[in-house]
Amino acid sequence: MTFNAFYGTIVHAISINQLDIVSNGLLVVDNEKGVIVSFEREVDDVEKFLGKLDRPYKLHRLTPEQFVFPGLVDTHAHAPQYVFAGSGMDLQLLEWLNTYVFPAESSFKSPQVAKDAYTKVVSRFLRNGTTTCSWFATIHLEACKILVDTIEQLGQRAYVGKVNMDQNSPDFYIEESTQASLDDTRAFIEYTQQKQQSNALITPVVTPRFAITCSSELMHGLSQLAKEYDIPIQTHLCENHNEIEFTCSLFPKSKHYTGIYADHGLLGDKSYMAHCVHMTDDEIDTLAKHNTGISHCANSNFSLHSGVCDVRRFLDKGVKVGLGTDVAGGFAPSMLDAVRSSFFASKCTLMAHRDRQQEYEHLGTAELVYLATLGGARVLGLQDTIGNFVVGKAFDALIVDLGSSQGSVDLMGNETPLQKVEKFLFNGNDQSLAHVFVQGRRVAGSSVE
Amino acid sequence: MTFNAFYGTIVHAISINQLDIVSNGLLVVDNEKGVIVSFEREVDDVEKFLGKLDRPYKLHRLTPEQFVFPGLVDTHAHAPQYVFAGSGMDLQLLEWLNTYVFPAESSFKSPQVAKDAYTKVVSRFLRNGTTTCSWFATIHLEACKILVDTIEQLGQRAYVGKVNMDQNSPDFYIEESTQASLDDTRAFIEYTQQKQQSNALITPVVTPRFAITCSSELMHGLSQLAKEYDIPIQTHLCENHNEIEFTCSLFPKSKHYTGIYADHGLLGDKSYMAHCVHMTDDEIDTLAKHNTGISHCANSNFSLHSGVCDVRRFLDKGVKVGLGTDVAGGFAPSMLDAVRSSFFASKCTLMAHRDRQQEYEHLGTAELVYLATLGGARVLGLQDTIGNFVVGKAFDALIVDLGSSQGSVDLMGNETPLQKVEKFLFNGNDQSLAHVFVQGRRVAGSSVE
Ligand SMILES: [Zn+2]
Ligand SMILES: [Zn+2]
Repeated sequence: MTFNAFYGTIVHAISINQLDIVSNGLLVVDNEKGVIVSFEREVDDVEKFLGKLDRPYKLHRLTPEQFVFPGLVDTHAHAPQYVFAGSGMDLQLLEWLNTYVFPAESSFKSPQVAKDAYTKVVSRFLRNGTTTCSWFATIHLEACKILVDTIEQLGQRAYVGKVNMDQNSPDFYIEESTQASLDDTRAFIEYTQQKQQSNALITPVVTPRFAITCSSELMHGLSQLAKEYDIPIQTHLCENHNEIEFTCSLFPKSKHYTGIYADHGLLGDKSYMAHCVHMTDDEIDTLAKHNTGISHCANSNFSLHSGVCDVRRFLDKGVKVGLGTDVAGGFAPSMLDAVRSSFFASKCTLMAHRDRQQEYEHLGTAELVYLATLGGARVLGLQDTIGNFVVGKAFDALIVDLGSSQGSVDLMGNETPLQKVEKFLFNGNDQSLAHVFVQGRRVAGSSVE
Repeated sequence: MTFNAFYGTIVHAISINQLDIVSNGLLVVDNEKGVIVSFEREVDDVEKFLGKLDRPYKLHRLTPEQFVFPGLVDTHAHAPQYVFAGSGMDLQLLEWLNTYVFPAESSFKSPQVAKDAYTKVVSRFLRNGTTTCSWFATIHLEACKILVDTIEQLGQRAYVGKVNMDQNSPDFYIEESTQASLDDTRAFIEYTQQKQQSNALITPVVTPRFAITCSSELMHGLSQLAKEYDIPIQTHLCENHNEIEFTCSLFPKSKHYTGIYADHGLLGDKSYMAHCVHMTDDEIDTLAKHNTGISHCANSNFSLHSGVCDVRRFLDKGVKVGLGTDVAGGFAPSMLDAVRSSFFASKCTLMAHRDRQQEYEHLGTAELVYLATLGGARVLGLQDTIGNFVVGKAFDALIVDLGSSQGSVDLMGNETPLQKVEKFLFNGNDQSLAHVFVQGRRVAGSSVE
């Protein structure tokens, strides 16, 4: 049993408005458990401090170009869609689903396709610093198991969902029956929960694609499964005008789109909804009442011209908010891109308010860091496990290095610590991440080990 | 005297709507002149073809993951502002100028500051594939010469402007007098034109910062200098509502902001204007009449919440359009980011039209490639020299490699050539550029030489 000790600048979000930048900070990690056992500020004599520990330790002294940053949390991404990320950005949601998404996803009937693609996408996300991801897979039980196996092997913390679709789907990509959909979901949950006994990092998530592709019977059944196994629920909500209109026409008894999920028992404090671009106040209140979170996917909302989500409406009502790449509605498999796209979306919202002579405050640096880390952790119910650096939490972390010759950031040497963080957020990339840790284990990094 | 021959997929814009993807293409470059001497399509027996050449050649066979792409053209960037790129994204234009820009730029009074910073920024741009850049420097003659020397040394094709500011500027960052501003500009032009005798890649540009910081007398004098030396003019135009209002109040005799420049002889077919976010039809017609181009800086327009420029209004009236990073109003020193930000801006414009029940076509892949290459070349009057691959043009090119293990793109192996181009545009970065050539000379690249 040994410790890893990181000594230098440590940056993390304490709350949505508080970015904590610790100089001469010391983080000590229990290597066996992957848990933070000590977090000290302003440590002058680090050797003296570490001398008091009762176990051997390895000390990593960070350079002035380096800092420790929490692992990034992606609250919404489609693993199989990564195969075409960056192409097909011409269409809007419903056309895009039929032209690109469903054909690509249906190819995951082949375990070999799944194995190849899932290895690439999970590796890419880890390399880009996404230590926790909430994945949509496909309808195929076998391929979903392969995704879980791949994630386990590569060491990511993940929520994984087998997608449910029993109606309004193409002939070549639909489940055989409502019962088959429920049975496969149960089998997937049990397979994944079995894994959890040896690997606590992977959690199954009940994942109706969205109300359009799910019958009322299926949604009720999925709600029951989530209760029975005490697991989270993820789906899409209010992404696009046409989608909303069609959805509401399918479920005329519900008050609104959000009401459809409420009426089927799919909202709760373990549920989170991707997009939520076009929502009435009553819908947001409904989410708040159920303590259901949202995943803000700004790149996707621009790329598919779904709309611009004003996340402040949700934050102001106390709804939990995290960021999502929504690969491949969003083209970038990177949470740093999610930060930048959310920044643009927030500036767009500010401009829209200005045009109406209204005040608006765009998302600032502290808020962006929070949303990409602790905010996402809260959406997933992982706020006591990850998201920032607190004794007892897991060490899911990035060692950011802005001094690498392969890096995408230039330092001039006179930057404040805050400016270094901002240069990382706005111009950093995978080359800025010397090491990526999940639960204390190094899973990626540009630095040669 | 030797040739370099590139054999494989070659991608370039022929016109705004025509993306030409050539399979089994062969580009032969005269290494001494750096000029394309042959461009063939569908070459089956490349050795046989090359056997007919009268000089020794080196053949580069591209892999299926590689293609040749035109060098990227950045029509608007501030070299000194790169020192704080990514920080200070909280303010809007006029506040931001006073808080961040002017203090940073004034530090370029020091030649050492200039040398360090300019080496970093020009190297970074080349590494990101920007083979041609139109730079704003600072008001300091000495530092401007250093920028020219640095660009020459690093091998970029560039338009370089000494900035003029003789009014409405802070005490610590303003030129001594109108005459001193004109004298230094003349000295800078002569210094740079002297260079041109040995290095045709660098062109001086008359660069009034914008009308706010330039007296009427200064602008008239600069117009004369541009005529006398037959060189281009660049400035800012209609970036932000407050700026427009203040500018028009300073020059009440002119019809509008664009009219101010017209009235001072600053519009013409060698002039180009950055931003042009908020323009009346009459202003766009004025640009069209003078055959003056624009630089669309989408990242900057989002980041400083200036507004969203609808470039189609300009294209429809025949105005030349290129893209600009506007570092550091834009945070990214990358034309691939400019492509993505322009894509987002175009999607925003589409959404605004949709809200008014109007049709709108967003920028597609072919248009984005055009704007980042040949469109920018046209804005700078370089359409006969660079921008795409034509016999007689300079070989300013990128060898894109999506197969590198350090790269940011994953190929699945079944992508069409167009999908490879799109994956590069949307997810590529400097690691995707194995080699970067300017006038046939390799100036950067992630591949080990
Ligand atoms: Zn999605
Ligand atoms: Zn500018």
